[in-house]
Order: sequence, then C-alpha cells, then structure tokens
Amino acid sequence: MNEREGVSVPKVVDHEQRRLELADAALALAARDGLAAVTTRATAAECGWSTGVLNHYFSSRNELLSAALRRAGDLQQQTYARILADNATARDKLTAITESILPLDPRRLALTRIFLFFYAQGAADEGARVEIAGFLDRWRTVLHDTVCSGQRSGELPADIQTASAVFALQAMADGAAFEAILDPVAMDTIRQDGFAARCVDHALAAHRPGPHHT
Amino acid sequence: MNEREGVSVPKVVDHEQRRLELADAALALAARDGLAAVTTRATAAECGWSTGVLNHYFSSRNELLSAALRRAGDLQQQTYARILADNATARDKLTAITESILPLDPRRLALTRIFLFFYAQGAADEGARVEIAGFLDRWRTVLHDTVCSGQRSGELPADIQTASAVFALQAMADGAAFEAILDPVAMDTIRQDGFAARCVDHALAAHRPGPHHT
Repeated sequence: MNEREGVSVPKVVDHEQRRLELADAALALAARDGLAAVTTRATAAECGWSTGVLNHYFSSRNELLSAALRRAGDLQQQTYARILADNATARDKLTAITESILPLDPRRLALTRIFLFFYAQGAADEGARVEIAGFLDRWRTVLHDTVCSGQRSGELPADIQTASAVFALQAMADGAAFEAILDPVAMDTIRQDGFAARCVDHALAAHRPGPHHT
Repeated sequence: MNEREGVSVPKVVDHEQRRLELADAALALAARDGLAAVTTRATAAECGWSTGVLNHYFSSRNELLSAALRRAGDLQQQTYARILADNATARDKLTAITESILPLDPRRLALTRIFLFFYAQGAADEGARVEIAGFLDRWRTVLHDTVCSGQRSGELPADIQTASAVFALQAMADGAAFEAILDPVAMDTIRQDGFAARCVDHALAAHRPGPHHT
C-alpha cells in the first residue's frame, strides 16, 4: 500500500511553519514579559506544545533566540516593504522607516530589546555579528533607495550627500532606540510628537555641500 | 604589645585601591582579548594574584564586570574633565568628547564593548540600567555645558536648540559606536577623517529654529 493511501490526515508536518510559530511565540513573550521570560519551556507552553517538541526544533535557548532575531529581521523587512509600497512622499517614508525602529509601543519595545541583546552577543559571536550587520545593511539600503527615489522625483534636493545622511539617520535612530529603553529622558524625547520626522529633516538638511560651521 | 609595634610593613591593605587595580586589569583584558576573556581567574592572573584573593573582592564575574563598568565610567569622566580644561573652542571640545566615545583605538574599542554589554544587561537588570542612565546623563551634561559656554562666549549661535542638538549628537555617537564594532561599513565611516567634527557641525546646524524642510 502506498504510504499516501489510507492516511486521511497527512502526517507531513510543515517544519518551517512550526519554527516560525515558535519564533513568533518567543517574540510575543519578549514583548509581554521581557527577554528574560523567553525560555524554551515558556515558549513551548505559549504554543501549547511540550518542551520536548520545542527541543526537536531548537536545541538551546540561544538557538531559539537566534530564530527570534531572524524572525524580527524578516518582520522588519515586511514593514519596510509595506512602507515603500505606500503612496507617500520620500520624507514620509523615511519618517515611517525611522519610527518602525523606535520603541514606541510594546511590540517595537520587544524588538529593540531583542536587537540590543544580539548587538551585545555580536560583539563576541560571529554568527550574531553577521546577522546584525545584515540587518543594518538592509535598513541602510531601504533608506538609501528612498532618498534616491525622492531625488529622482524632484521632492528632495539632488545635492544631498546620500551616504552620510543615511548613516547619520540610522546611527541616530539606533542610538536613540537603545538609550530610550534604559533612560527615561531619552524615552521622553523619542515620544515627542514629530521626533522621527525631525530626525529625517535634520539628517537631510545637514548633509548637503557647503559650510555647516556655525 | 601594641599591634602596630613590631610590624615593619604595615598590613593595612588599601581595599579600594585593590578593587581599582582589579577593575583596571579587567578593562585591560577586555581591550586586549575581548570581553569573553574577562574571567575572574584571568583577571587575578593579570594582577599576579590568586583567584582566592580576587574572590575576596568580587564574588562573581558579573560583579567584576560591574566594577569594570563603573571604572570605565569614571575614566570617561576624567577624559571629559581633561577635555573641558583644555584651552580649545567649544566646537573642538564637542568633537573631542564625541571622539572619546567612538571605538577608534583598542582602549575605546574595549570601552564600547563593555558599554554595549551593560546596555544589554540594563534591559533586564535595574542596577545596570541605573548605571547606564547615569553615564548617559553625565555625557549629556558635559555636552550641554560646552554648548552653553560656547554660546556665552559668542562662538556658537545663541539660537541653537541645545537640548535637541545634544540629544542628537549623543544618540548619533552612541549608535555609530555600537554599529562600528559589528559592521565594517560603519567602522569605515567613523574612521574617516573629521567624522566626529562633522557630527558636531551637523547637530549644531540642524537644531536651530526655522524650516529644515528640504
């Protein structure tokens, strides 16, 4: 008898789907209870599975966290794609990209914590470092393409020094995001109305030829 | 016989001095071999002491690392004091303060790694969070005072929005420093001639009243 016959419910388990589900559960836990709450046991429970099933997919907490980091990176890519598909000005897209990085709600707070955790890991672990460098590169590319497209349409000045403007905007958002989860002064600042838009305007205005000496 | 008599070498140990010496050894190890190399055993060996003596001062690796963080913060304060005492323009002082944060040599690379490690700790641990918030506050105060003194002397325009300029400069330097130890593109950028001076100029130029819309 062919294996496929006589089995009414297909026993093919979509392993990739299960890994995603577990990574999502880890992200949900981190958002709700902080990164320390993301254990293999708690993540399995969050999915209604046994720890044994989870161990089949991730052999350690660190592997689970790595999967959560990759998942966070993929979700961030989807956010970028949604923003770019929007019928908005380049300036509004740059602002939305910057806001998507800032810890302004529990979901983004969890993502910022996860990225900070892996930035620190990346200082010692090459796998984490490569993952973070890739995340920074994709973020920079999206900013860069958005500035260039705004320049082509005439919305943004042609003389913006794109690479330095993009680097400044990224570094400022990255630094402000990490500082905000540690320092109430920084959190208050990024929560001010229009903070991200001002970051964008300043980065674009500052990186043009001519003396900036004050 | 009085305890003080008959003892030619005073047995009074300067405990604070020993703690500092161990914290310095931990920083030296981190600079030379990375944060993973900072174990209690290696730090004791670096000072020529037994692990037993070290354990008398620090009961765990994490306590030793915390002492290294506080020491790094104190050294950073001494750096600020040296910069402020210099007979230089406000702009040059702001540049020197910013450069002191960037991982441009092995010593600052080690400090950046230690701060990144404790930023990540601070997301979960209140003691580390308070330590980092204090570090950010002292850094901001030094930047703020320098801008104000440059304004009083007429070197810097009176209409700079000091708080936002200072926040932007700090966030940019912090983000760029962390990105640089993970991403070669970022490291190349911060190593460019005049990078810190441009950060300062941009932060000062961008945070003035009037439309920055490009």
